[in-house]
Amino acid sequence: MLPTIAWDGDDILMIDQRKLPGREIYMRCKTGSEVARAITTMAGAPRIAIDFQRLADVLAATRPTAVNLFWAIERMKQALTTGVSAGEGVADLRARLRHEADAIHDADVASCQAIGRHGAVVMPDDARILTHCNAGALATAGYGTALGVVRAAVAAGKSVHVFADETRPFLQGARLTAWELVKDGIPTTVITDNMAAAMMAGGHVNVVVVGADRIAANGDTANKIGTYGVAILAQAHGIPFYVAAPWSTIDLATATGAGIPIEERAAKEVTHMAGTQVTPAGAAVRNPAFDVTPHRYISGIVTERGIVYPPFAENLASAAC
Amino acid sequence: MLPTIAWDGDDILMIDQRKLPGREIYMRCKTGSEVARAITTMAGAPRIAIDFQRLADVLAATRPTAVNLFWAIERMKQALTTGVSAGEGVADLRARLRHEADAIHDADVASCQAIGRHGAVVMPDDARILTHCNAGALATAGYGTALGVVRAAVAAGKSVHVFADETRPFLQGARLTAWELVKDGIPTTVITDNMAAAMMAGGHVNVVVVGADRIAANGDTANKIGTYGVAILAQAHGIPFYVAAPWSTIDLATATGAGIPIEERAAKEVTHMAGTQVTPAGAAVRNPAFDVTPHRYISGIVTERGIVYPPFAENLASAAC
Repeated sequence: MLPTIAWDGDDILMIDQRKLPGREIYMRCKTGSEVARAITTMAGAPRIAIDFQRLADVLAATRPTAVNLFWAIERMKQALTTGVSAGEGVADLRARLRHEADAIHDADVASCQAIGRHGAVVMPDDARILTHCNAGALATAGYGTALGVVRAAVAAGKSVHVFADETRPFLQGARLTAWELVKDGIPTTVITDNMAAAMMAGGHVNVVVVGADRIAANGDTANKIGTYGVAILAQAHGIPFYVAAPWSTIDLATATGAGIPIEERAAKEVTHMAGTQVTPAGAAVRNPAFDVTPHRYISGIVTERGIVYPPFAENLASAAC
Repeated sequence: MLPTIAWDGDDILMIDQRKLPGREIYMRCKTGSEVARAITTMAGAPRIAIDFQRLADVLAATRPTAVNLFWAIERMKQALTTGVSAGEGVADLRARLRHEADAIHDADVASCQAIGRHGAVVMPDDARILTHCNAGALATAGYGTALGVVRAAVAAGKSVHVFADETRPFLQGARLTAWELVKDGIPTTVITDNMAAAMMAGGHVNVVVVGADRIAANGDTANKIGTYGVAILAQAHGIPFYVAAPWSTIDLATATGAGIPIEERAAKEVTHMAGTQVTPAGAAVRNPAFDVTPHRYISGIVTERGIVYPPFAENLASAAC
């Protein structure tokens, strides 16, 4: 497991994802504000679980699409307010939060490992897995969802080769997914996003596994921009398309993908590369950070409770019980 | 028309596409070798027509996929060898080549303008056109094929907004297409390649027009990597997908797309951005410069002779007569 986030005394150490793969630098966050800033600037987006009742709103505003951010904030609020006795002081409340944060962290690792075990079963013995963005150790507490499936398939003795979409504009695939997989010794080929169709047509890919930022009650899935296109391409080539995500990503209160807010990020992420402007002044840009894949393109949703298959509306509802 | 290539005495001046849109610099090529180097390094890929009988092989090796490169070389060879009288000296042969080069240039402009006129007819009155790579003035003698259609639609009084895929890895869309269109005052939005599906789903795009590097006898079309994916996405959203290309791009000697050689370019175009390495050491990369779109995804092929519709095998053959 990659050490992507850890306590150091009362501080949080987070790997700075913006510097990967060139440099492995850990940022020290001493306050909730520092954590929120790190998330907003894309240094990291791990599960958030720190001392923060008063910072809940700040943190909630960092990324509107990812639903388990709100879930974690709610859990921390509950930990602060449930069963508190009159005699508890600040140190006790701090200990409650620290305990809850550790519980969320440990549960995330266990969830991802369970997701991996379930997902590995449906990977081909000769798995040529396309993934998009980073749904790995860097996006979770250390094992990953989509990359948890990859790791578990390797652990199960399957032959695995991963094709990582570079994932413009922020290059999480080229920088983060490839870095994680190379560290683990898993054969990895980086492609530009627009090569996915040619790789599929050429027989180089036989399964797709991606993560999710939010899954609606009908199975519609918000994930990193470009995921929807990959799903259409997979269906056109008869390639199964799996979403791997912890149950906390499933938002039964949102009926369909149309109800999921999509974060639009700064134009500069598209117009500039490594500090150099690549688009002419006068051209507009769009930069939605996510898109929604309609459930009809999804072969199965791999959760820690098992794989949920279509029809998703019924099967997600019953698995929730 | 943009001045992308021109004679200056006996030299050729070509705009250096690698420097766009930041700087508009013209390279001076004094020899055929210099022209070949400019094409190989992606400084430019205009119609090649210079003094070069002995350089034909060097030039032919610069880009294996684009078929009208070979067509132009063959025309120049013919000009050197057809109807030559015993009394002609070096100066006469040079004049023959110069004359043929100018004829190719002028015919290209006329072809592109005719392509534009034919293509403009099938653009919606409120055209929201997605294009990929650069099939504009920079890829032709000055008017463009796909962008010729855009320009002609604007000239015909239609409302036009262009979405330009940035077109990784070389960013011809972000750098070149956007630069051309902004120069012409045509509203342009640059998107990363992986946003195309979301733009289609959101109703922002109602037609796709792309260029071609080679079209097989059955209509299968080789064009910049990513074109095939865009074609699948267009079909999934019920959006017409047009290929705009001069007749010299149609290769009736190649039966299907399977017979078109695909150039694989250097890994560094993918691994580095503006001089910075973005992928970790140890990760493999792929870099096919083109892909093949099967004819079943193509609504029509816009040529200077008119629009060819399916079934392409029959209709291309009869239009060739």
